[in-house]
Amino acid sequence: MVKKTVEISAREHNDLIAAENRKHFFDHGIFAVNIIGSPGCGKTSILEYTVNHFNETFAVIVGDVKTALDSDRIIHAGHSNAYAIETGGGCHLTAQMIKEKVGQMETAAIDYLFIENVGNLVCPSTFDLGEHLKIAVLSIPEGDEKVRKYPALFLRAAVVLINKVDLLGFMDYDIERVKEDCRAHNSKVKIFETSVKTGQGLDAFFDYLREQRRYF
Amino acid sequence: MVKKTVEISAREHNDLIAAENRKHFFDHGIFAVNIIGSPGCGKTSILEYTVNHFNETFAVIVGDVKTALDSDRIIHAGHSNAYAIETGGGCHLTAQMIKEKVGQMETAAIDYLFIENVGNLVCPSTFDLGEHLKIAVLSIPEGDEKVRKYPALFLRAAVVLINKVDLLGFMDYDIERVKEDCRAHNSKVKIFETSVKTGQGLDAFFDYLREQRRYF
Repeated sequence: MVKKTVEISAREHNDLIAAENRKHFFDHGIFAVNIIGSPGCGKTSILEYTVNHFNETFAVIVGDVKTALDSDRIIHAGHSNAYAIETGGGCHLTAQMIKEKVGQMETAAIDYLFIENVGNLVCPSTFDLGEHLKIAVLSIPEGDEKVRKYPALFLRAAVVLINKVDLLGFMDYDIERVKEDCRAHNSKVKIFETSVKTGQGLDAFFDYLREQRRYF
Repeated sequence: MVKKTVEISAREHNDLIAAENRKHFFDHGIFAVNIIGSPGCGKTSILEYTVNHFNETFAVIVGDVKTALDSDRIIHAGHSNAYAIETGGGCHLTAQMIKEKVGQMETAAIDYLFIENVGNLVCPSTFDLGEHLKIAVLSIPEGDEKVRKYPALFLRAAVVLINKVDLLGFMDYDIERVKEDCRAHNSKVKIFETSVKTGQGLDAFFDYLREQRRYF
């Protein structure tokens, strides 16, 4: 008998686990999204708003380098089904981290899974977690050239939320140019202008998620 | 004769090159700083301000995943000694990238080197480039919990610029708490409240750099 050892890269290993996660989500009727954006672009605030305005059953996983501050915010907003992953220095979530956390959940009671990745426009972009959609979050105070500077995310994101649009009057930001840049990377991208302060765009975003779940 | 191969990690290799860079800077009287912060926190705007208000001889290296937009901004601000590094997907600058770029410079004419790292609060924090100081840039719209969530940077940064303080009235931000968090990570940290719009704090920051160069 010949013993065979197959070496695979960390990336390939990640993708295998991601495929397992995707099958697990499918088997349990869970529609999973992977939310990626800079530190402070409003990912957690959007999830707090979601807790109060999205009347579906869902769970939230929040990744951070350090602290469970963000999952505490979700729980504080009135949602018990929130889980923290501390990466301990890691700059992105991995499929294995998600697999372990999903293993602790009552999946029968969940129709949607929101995964908030580590605040970082680079590294999370190329690591598949098994999600159905990658959602990129931009925000007005970051400046309007981010799509050009961080193409990996915008090539892959099916949805872009341009967040904090309530601040549009206060700073220079060419939102039409940002939309053009998004479409140049992904002609099918779905773009929502959102604000947690005013609620703008978020109901339309939730309707979009419901529609996507119907066909996943 | 025994042939000996020593294997070193990518990190160790980086640190060796960083030590070479540091010696090179010392030999040429160049005081080098490594500026790290989130996408959109204002790193390039601070450098544009520096071009117009810091009357010393200096060069600027700007790292981005993609595009030379930021070095173009520096040149457009009237400074010819600006260099772009496109990491091509890489989430941080490396000592080797800096070594190659510095090799192209007229180092005799430079007293300071400003290195703007890739916009990212995680990965650049732990890669030594041979700089004398790491400078962390925070900004008000990002929210006030970033120091707790990204400890690696704040354990290492000698200087923290809390930038865009002109926006303090427009959003919730507990600046005293942020300063306490900074000091909890590094009791000797030097903190400046800065704004490129009003110029606040930047002259004091420049004076600090001059003082540090005197003793490096």
